[in-house]
Amino acid sequence: MPLPSALYRPSLALLTDFYQLTMAYAAWKEGLADTEAVFTISFRRHPYGGGFTIAAGLELAVDYLEHFRFDEEDLAFVAAQRGADGAPLFEAGFIDHLRGLRLEVDVDAVPEGTAVFPYEPVVRVKGPIIPCMLLETPLLDLVNFQTLIATKAARVCLAARGEPVVEFGLRRAQGVDGALAASRAAYLGGCAGTSNVLAGRLFGIPVKGTHAHSWVMLFDDEREAFESYARALPANCLFLVDTYDSLEGVRHAVEVGKWLRAQGKELLGIRLDSGDLAWLSIQARRLLDEAGFQKATVFASNELDELIIDSLKEQGARIAAWGVGTRLVTGQPDGALGGVYKLTAVRRPGEPWKYRVKLSERVQKTTIPGLLQVRRFVQDGVLVADAIYDEWSGLPSPATIVDPLDLTRRKTLDGALEGEDLLRPVFRGGALVGPRPTLEEARARVRQQLALLHPGVKRFVNPHQLPVGLEKGLFERRTALVLAARGES
Amino acid sequence: MPLPSALYRPSLALLTDFYQLTMAYAAWKEGLADTEAVFTISFRRHPYGGGFTIAAGLELAVDYLEHFRFDEEDLAFVAAQRGADGAPLFEAGFIDHLRGLRLEVDVDAVPEGTAVFPYEPVVRVKGPIIPCMLLETPLLDLVNFQTLIATKAARVCLAARGEPVVEFGLRRAQGVDGALAASRAAYLGGCAGTSNVLAGRLFGIPVKGTHAHSWVMLFDDEREAFESYARALPANCLFLVDTYDSLEGVRHAVEVGKWLRAQGKELLGIRLDSGDLAWLSIQARRLLDEAGFQKATVFASNELDELIIDSLKEQGARIAAWGVGTRLVTGQPDGALGGVYKLTAVRRPGEPWKYRVKLSERVQKTTIPGLLQVRRFVQDGVLVADAIYDEWSGLPSPATIVDPLDLTRRKTLDGALEGEDLLRPVFRGGALVGPRPTLEEARARVRQQLALLHPGVKRFVNPHQLPVGLEKGLFERRTALVLAARGES
Repeated sequence: MPLPSALYRPSLALLTDFYQLTMAYAAWKEGLADTEAVFTISFRRHPYGGGFTIAAGLELAVDYLEHFRFDEEDLAFVAAQRGADGAPLFEAGFIDHLRGLRLEVDVDAVPEGTAVFPYEPVVRVKGPIIPCMLLETPLLDLVNFQTLIATKAARVCLAARGEPVVEFGLRRAQGVDGALAASRAAYLGGCAGTSNVLAGRLFGIPVKGTHAHSWVMLFDDEREAFESYARALPANCLFLVDTYDSLEGVRHAVEVGKWLRAQGKELLGIRLDSGDLAWLSIQARRLLDEAGFQKATVFASNELDELIIDSLKEQGARIAAWGVGTRLVTGQPDGALGGVYKLTAVRRPGEPWKYRVKLSERVQKTTIPGLLQVRRFVQDGVLVADAIYDEWSGLPSPATIVDPLDLTRRKTLDGALEGEDLLRPVFRGGALVGPRPTLEEARARVRQQLALLHPGVKRFVNPHQLPVGLEKGLFERRTALVLAARGES
Repeated sequence: MPLPSALYRPSLALLTDFYQLTMAYAAWKEGLADTEAVFTISFRRHPYGGGFTIAAGLELAVDYLEHFRFDEEDLAFVAAQRGADGAPLFEAGFIDHLRGLRLEVDVDAVPEGTAVFPYEPVVRVKGPIIPCMLLETPLLDLVNFQTLIATKAARVCLAARGEPVVEFGLRRAQGVDGALAASRAAYLGGCAGTSNVLAGRLFGIPVKGTHAHSWVMLFDDEREAFESYARALPANCLFLVDTYDSLEGVRHAVEVGKWLRAQGKELLGIRLDSGDLAWLSIQARRLLDEAGFQKATVFASNELDELIIDSLKEQGARIAAWGVGTRLVTGQPDGALGGVYKLTAVRRPGEPWKYRVKLSERVQKTTIPGLLQVRRFVQDGVLVADAIYDEWSGLPSPATIVDPLDLTRRKTLDGALEGEDLLRPVFRGGALVGPRPTLEEARARVRQQLALLHPGVKRFVNPHQLPVGLEKGLFERRTALVLAARGES
């Protein structure tokens, strides 16, 4: 069940920047509604200083497009907007135009769970200019956040080296669906479950949890609290041991574990939530093992992220499962993915397509023109290069790619190598094309994609940067357009 | 129109951590459902290294409580949960208990827009243990995020020194309501408007915007693009000038401004979105003034926050209005407020209340016991101190307060000074008490509260820390409880 249509009560057609409406109006009023455009979502750097990004959010965007329509309350709100002169900004004819608007666009996108790289097109929208404008902001909102969190989850799960990571972030997340959408993306990226029960209900994610400090504090002593919980929930006993003294808590858990075993049940484990997790986990493991609870899990939480988990692993921590909250669901330390939606080509009725670039003082922010596609080359099970090319020009074979930031870095790809295009048709003329992958399928794709990446690309510190470049002809066209726009052609 | 009931389609009763349900079940099963508790939300440090925090989110919490109920889909999901042994975790009687559950709790809270300080109770919930448990996670989610963003907005608006700040964050926000809730909190904290049209519709926030780079790129040249926009929207012309060359863009805006004036309309201004904003704004201002457009605004955007705005002001930038996006709506660099919900007292039926503390290796994380309240003391229009006290013991006069982290820092408050309690009744036995403030009233309260703060408290670098302390008797009780729990009394 994808967000947002299942979640939100009002129409989300107004979930856009006001300037999309004013531009749409100007296009309508100026007779440009038949102008067509191509817009491309891409980002300029990996989050978290990493070497890869996991694309996500596409299925939410699909849901958004499928359910898009202005309701009467939306239209009344738009009609009520006034300009600096106090008069209505929009004519009634435009309101009627919005009422009848259908998003007859073509959308191509990389499937959720795909590893992607800076400058690559992730989503491409082609169609009449007004729908293209209105979609900019909601698509960015959905894709940026899901991608940010799916990537973080993939990193955290890599750090945990196959051990389960449970997402615990609801209480610190950015709003209700800052939490729900994060739970979805975290599961997509590799987490084993969530504490968020509603996310479990909506997305089919396994829900996890046992008890809080407050359970222990309800009682006069900790063992009494564990005993009471064990009587009620003998098949869900993973005791939080740090309310007063963590190792004393482990001893209490062991005592209750013996009682459970006498009832034919097993202690699932203990949870550490403060203190020196490396040292405490080694001590806790020893206490559990000595008492005959070799299968009881040592679970840890407390402001964890991939770097802390990696460091705990290096210190020999005996932790076998991880609860990760705040830093995962808010995508710290980045907090946002800077994905952009840029016009790359435009066509007036009856005219050919024109390529477009936006200049910038910084070459990083200069856009790439065309109907962009990415072809991925894999050799012996390892991703060797991605070529960004213009579908209108095609990709020659053998292809030479040029680093978009450094024209002296080039690579020619073996002509014998078969590539695969990453963007796939999603909508044609506003109609959905083909079946959609499930969340489980997207999650499986993350594992498959991570397996294609050389370990150096997945490293947290100074990762290897995979060769991703513009097909040489595209690079040259972009350079020529920039120079022409600067009057230096 | 407050979130979340107006926004969300499913019941949000499951918007909680799974362990709240398992604990609630254990309480029900163990005959503890009549046990009463007091829980308190507080935080341990100001966000952004600042000297104040603006409390927000209470009205969303009120809406959440008023609309709380488990629907049949919720109950079916809970009933389907299984333990490690594969058997259902919860008995059918518990599902019936949830079906009939009413949140008959007392809630006291500081009004939205109040300046608050570390360790102060912000929201207090008192009542039967099961509703208290279930409310922990949703209340924290709502209050933490709104407070994080309202505080950021207040800081950004302080930096802008009274000039309008428009929130532009939708495309980089954390999900749909990561954006909507952020727009609400940003407006509450002082912003003048938002680009998010749906936030405008839902909350009555003024919506703002003109055009994007893509508008300019639709045309073969920039002046043509401005002219076309001006013909369609003559009363909303604030031109984005940096698509190709910012100062050339200002010249084009001036030419179109002259045309507008000939039509009896006025150029509203220009927007800078890249480059050296200080230098460019000075040049743009000069070009506009020389052309007779003294009233046209120089508007700036591009990854702004309070520190960058402050720096631009110091550099003499001639910017009169500000668009702030990513860093505002995601609360960078913090990304989360670490508010916690802690058990502070408990009562078994027929017994007196017992005070509770949770220990920690770090005194910062040791909780404060009691039915907590804050009394605020203002002298000559300036906030001089806040005293955290236990309502069951009262606040003596004169009162001595002790810094919770340093027992040698104390202050005795003049007995002649009148104080005001910050927490006010919101719910009694589950029924809402009194009228609720509007968003505009909360926004006005922010201005009034900021006016009470000494400038040193509002400084961005090394702010003055206002004296906030525990009433001496409360401090001593907490110390005694900690020593007793450690067996050192």
